[in-house]
Amino acid sequence: MLIIMQPKARQVDITQVLNRLQEVGLRGELLQGQERMVIAVIGEVKSAVTIPFEAMDGVEKTMLVSDIPRAAARESHPAPTVIRVQDVEIGGNQVIVMAGPCAVEGESQIMDTAVAVKKAGAKLLRGGAFKPRTSPYSFQGLEVEGVKLLKEAGKQNNLPIVSEIMAPNQIDLFVEYVDVIQIGARNMQNFSLLKEVGRAGKPVLLKRGLAATIEEWLLAAEYILNEGNPSVILCERGIRTFETATRNTLDLSAVPLVKELSHLPIVVDPSHGTGRWRLVAPMAKAALAAGADGLLIEVHPHPERALSDGFQSLTLENFSQLMGEVRRLAECLGRKL
Amino acid sequence: MLIIMQPKARQVDITQVLNRLQEVGLRGELLQGQERMVIAVIGEVKSAVTIPFEAMDGVEKTMLVSDIPRAAARESHPAPTVIRVQDVEIGGNQVIVMAGPCAVEGESQIMDTAVAVKKAGAKLLRGGAFKPRTSPYSFQGLEVEGVKLLKEAGKQNNLPIVSEIMAPNQIDLFVEYVDVIQIGARNMQNFSLLKEVGRAGKPVLLKRGLAATIEEWLLAAEYILNEGNPSVILCERGIRTFETATRNTLDLSAVPLVKELSHLPIVVDPSHGTGRWRLVAPMAKAALAAGADGLLIEVHPHPERALSDGFQSLTLENFSQLMGEVRRLAECLGRKL
Amino acid sequence: MLIIMQPKARQVDITQVLNRLQEVGLRGELLQGQERMVIAVIGEVKSAVTIPFEAMDGVEKTMLVSDIPRAAARESHPAPTVIRVQDVEIGGNQVIVMAGPCAVEGESQIMDTAVAVKKAGAKLLRGGAFKPRTSPYSFQGLEVEGVKLLKEAGKQNNLPIVSEIMAPNQIDLFVEYVDVIQIGARNMQNFSLLKEVGRAGKPVLLKRGLAATIEEWLLAAEYILNEGNPSVILCERGIRTFETATRNTLDLSAVPLVKELSHLPIVVDPSHGTGRWRLVAPMAKAALAAGADGLLIEVHPHPERALSDGFQSLTLENFSQLMGEVRRLAECLGRKL
Amino acid sequence: MLIIMQPKARQVDITQVLNRLQEVGLRGELLQGQERMVIAVIGEVKSAVTIPFEAMDGVEKTMLVSDIPRAAARESHPAPTVIRVQDVEIGGNQVIVMAGPCAVEGESQIMDTAVAVKKAGAKLLRGGAFKPRTSPYSFQGLEVEGVKLLKEAGKQNNLPIVSEIMAPNQIDLFVEYVDVIQIGARNMQNFSLLKEVGRAGKPVLLKRGLAATIEEWLLAAEYILNEGNPSVILCERGIRTFETATRNTLDLSAVPLVKELSHLPIVVDPSHGTGRWRLVAPMAKAALAAGADGLLIEVHPHPERALSDGFQSLTLENFSQLMGEVRRLAECLGRKL
Repeated sequence: MLIIMQPKARQVDITQVLNRLQEVGLRGELLQGQERMVIAVIGEVKSAVTIPFEAMDGVEKTMLVSDIPRAAARESHPAPTVIRVQDVEIGGNQVIVMAGPCAVEGESQIMDTAVAVKKAGAKLLRGGAFKPRTSPYSFQGLEVEGVKLLKEAGKQNNLPIVSEIMAPNQIDLFVEYVDVIQIGARNMQNFSLLKEVGRAGKPVLLKRGLAATIEEWLLAAEYILNEGNPSVILCERGIRTFETATRNTLDLSAVPLVKELSHLPIVVDPSHGTGRWRLVAPMAKAALAAGADGLLIEVHPHPERALSDGFQSLTLENFSQLMGEVRRLAECLGRKL
Repeated sequence: MLIIMQPKARQVDITQVLNRLQEVGLRGELLQGQERMVIAVIGEVKSAVTIPFEAMDGVEKTMLVSDIPRAAARESHPAPTVIRVQDVEIGGNQVIVMAGPCAVEGESQIMDTAVAVKKAGAKLLRGGAFKPRTSPYSFQGLEVEGVKLLKEAGKQNNLPIVSEIMAPNQIDLFVEYVDVIQIGARNMQNFSLLKEVGRAGKPVLLKRGLAATIEEWLLAAEYILNEGNPSVILCERGIRTFETATRNTLDLSAVPLVKELSHLPIVVDPSHGTGRWRLVAPMAKAALAAGADGLLIEVHPHPERALSDGFQSLTLENFSQLMGEVRRLAECLGRKL
Repeated sequence: MLIIMQPKARQVDITQVLNRLQEVGLRGELLQGQERMVIAVIGEVKSAVTIPFEAMDGVEKTMLVSDIPRAAARESHPAPTVIRVQDVEIGGNQVIVMAGPCAVEGESQIMDTAVAVKKAGAKLLRGGAFKPRTSPYSFQGLEVEGVKLLKEAGKQNNLPIVSEIMAPNQIDLFVEYVDVIQIGARNMQNFSLLKEVGRAGKPVLLKRGLAATIEEWLLAAEYILNEGNPSVILCERGIRTFETATRNTLDLSAVPLVKELSHLPIVVDPSHGTGRWRLVAPMAKAALAAGADGLLIEVHPHPERALSDGFQSLTLENFSQLMGEVRRLAECLGRKL
Repeated sequence: MLIIMQPKARQVDITQVLNRLQEVGLRGELLQGQERMVIAVIGEVKSAVTIPFEAMDGVEKTMLVSDIPRAAARESHPAPTVIRVQDVEIGGNQVIVMAGPCAVEGESQIMDTAVAVKKAGAKLLRGGAFKPRTSPYSFQGLEVEGVKLLKEAGKQNNLPIVSEIMAPNQIDLFVEYVDVIQIGARNMQNFSLLKEVGRAGKPVLLKRGLAATIEEWLLAAEYILNEGNPSVILCERGIRTFETATRNTLDLSAVPLVKELSHLPIVVDPSHGTGRWRLVAPMAKAALAAGADGLLIEVHPHPERALSDGFQSLTLENFSQLMGEVRRLAECLGRKL
């Protein structure tokens, strides 16, 4: 961290800053120029960032030279992290597709979907049991029964399952039944929940918040890593912008940028990212071309009857067709499906 | 809800839509024009909004005529809701100021602040004990001890207290000690937590999420009201936009708009809304002129030593001076402080 | 400007940066620390900001210590600028209200409006003759005839006029007829037009762009000031965000922030800022409380018949009533109307 | 357009709406339901959209069923538009790459770049001569000399040229020298300029504005088409959001969405879209996978010496390498380079 002093800063101002740093166990080194004086903070910046130096006399502003999280940072771990879920590896050379309905709605719906996505080449089965709905009057999910139906459908098709957790008291249920615990976009900064899944020791799929910067997203991952759980899969699913033609704005630049900043695997959800099923296939392919490690795709046997997100779900046929395109593209990019 | 059919829709498409409506217990009325056919949905729209009609043949789009929540809606409750906390009334003619530090840091800090804000005219004491911090390495609050210190400082100065809850398992602690339970911006759509405080029966201060529309915010309030708790105070605290000169963009238009749409009281937090203490006083006054029922203001005896949000905290002196200006302005607006 | 070197930067990297600075006539001063080396740029930063140092070996990033425009900056001109238009002073103690229809539509419409707003206390008459419409099929304004009608209505009521210019070739017309030339939000970075009005020597009302930061807005003002025209009035009119309940998000924090950064007067347009006439009065008052020097308000004798922006226009009666409230509030704030 | 009446609307309100429609030459058809009455507007909606029905008694809201521009709309022109520039076809099966420096800086710079991009497979040469710079103190371009240097470099390498126009008075120069006239993001709603290039009859590259919705962008294209010029190439170059890790947020979903809504070709500019050269290659490939008809890429022989946008420019070597990857990807997608 650098503390930039005002041109008119007095000696007493500088001393005050240096003393304040000492109080929290840091050392400030005065870099003295003709026009400017800058104090470089030596030591663990962690203790310094909480101090509002800008409220002190003579200080113009502070600047963080590097504010990327530590455990998630590429430099702390140069090789990419590969996360193993049963016999599936996420973050390696293979492109991993996770597919299934937005919500588990009943036995035949999830069973039919599981059979079809397995056949088409998906490696994990996704499905929501506890649903975060904007309105309390919308369908809230089958809850415990939904988790069990999803597990059963996964087991019969040899597909590990991904499902969203919504509250800390669901953790035992998820540890028992779910293979990859999803943290939804609305809970990306639900820090209590992050710590809980951090302690649970199961792989976590961390969706980016609607208004979260990439830095905040990596810091949310840091909450999980910091509890001793190294298995975090990031999932870009669109951010909220002024554009209303799509449900969200899928920020694919996040893919290569996260790859540069972090060693964690990143997958993309073009279903939520666009909110329109016709855009899912082109954006799925774009995500791969941008370097994503996998895709999260909503599939439903009857989108027109889905209890949620029918607009953005692919039919089983459309999904199967997309997988053919994904396979060819992955090969062209030097990866396999 | 209206379902707009495509110009080329066939009779069979219309029948399919009408049948689908019947299945969920609704009736569709066909409004037949020369160029357009529209199906008006009769009955509880609630069951219709989850059906993706747009995925059905012949449907162009659906339009919600009114999508404002019911329990929070002005039309369901024409008189403004006044919430009583001990002998303070929020939502009435009096402007209510809630003040205190971002985080409770220790006994003398919170006690000094409580004495000063009481003297200056604040009606509630605010302070964070569990802190939602972007980074896991930042100060996380004094937790249970913080709640107790805040309660004690409130008691000694006859000030009810406001503090932020972060997880459902803190609910008993908050019901015992805290007078107004705050749901922070990052948890506005933590639906499990909303239901929990809805059942707790204590007044709730619901901050607007960083990327939440006014409609989503009222729907989050609906989660609380729907559990039987009528005491929700809305708090505008700035939304996230492209502008980085301020920490957030304080959306004061939300104040008169919420007053038009809802009967719930609304207060404004110019401290988080701007992130810069010099802007707090002008924006506090602007909030009142826009019609806010109260203010939430960060005050710290030594902002330059605050463990969080020092940049946006007023000193005790600055707060006292602001309260003088607020008093004069409130009178001019026909209200009292 | 500061150039932050990477921890692993070599001597040769430093030399390269210093040499590059020399080539453009600047001097770099090496501030050497234990962990960090920083090069402070001495001299006119102007020549340095265009060099992408970050693309050079060993450079981590560059940071601008102060990037606020020079001519518009408060520090270059500590006293507030007061702009005189006939016998009206903008930027002084008096709150100035500019009112009139979105578009001049005909003689009786503009004449009736002028008489009414004058009587209610407005000091300038506004009206659009050349209209920037999103669609080419919308009403584009009365053009030259509109300017002349507006001028005539202003003259008969002793009101200077404000109108929007859309192209450089309209400059002679505007210099002849218009007292304050408005640059609309969509043209805030139409640099050719900015230079043109900068050379015209007439007061300019510069609206903030829909996606413009405060810094970019002040830099747009700098284009005008830099041509020798010191008379720039800034106008906050809302920015574009994800919120769709209002037409734009009126960013009132910009008012005190601009006052801190710049000496230029700033007025607020709550009509475009909200897009809903019911919100105009509360937000007009909020703008004054935040410190605005004036207001720009859309008024129409028959909003329901307006050819543009009818939703956000006040009737003559509503405007007159608002002016009463504005007068009382201004007095309470120590200003006059 | 549909006009939704309030549940409590009276017969007199309906009559008033119907009469108002008649006045502007339209017919309203009353669709009468039990709960709702809706008036469907028959005829050219164009005259109706400017009427603020919502300000009339008994009207709840108006809804545009289809608000996509007409001349640009896919339905008005089902086959994709292919634009021919010399012997290059944009919008056909071939992927077209336009490359060159942000700004023309001198003869050797532009000549070296032209030779290299031609060799690597680019089909057009881009370069700025008039530069829209945020600050008046930044390099503003070589202007007329820049256009001539660019033309010469293009001619010697058999590359048509693309360059940005900034003001109507440059139109003769551009018609004489430039093959594709670029409208920059800041001028997307400079309607005078749009009309001017619409009348000039040369192909136009229309960049999306920083805060423009896809609908507004297509309506800007409509200004050009409406003047009789059918040759508009759309260019997605990123929108402004809260994310600051990238210069803009490249909205690749716009590519398949524009393809669905319009027949116009669309290219992508990953250089401005990301602002970081390391992200250019992955996002260029992602753009192709999403269905883009071409790419606009900044290339500079010495990015570290570029007078503008050096951070986002590829070196000649990096560009050549990217073109190899683009070629393989295009083939895999069934297109050619």
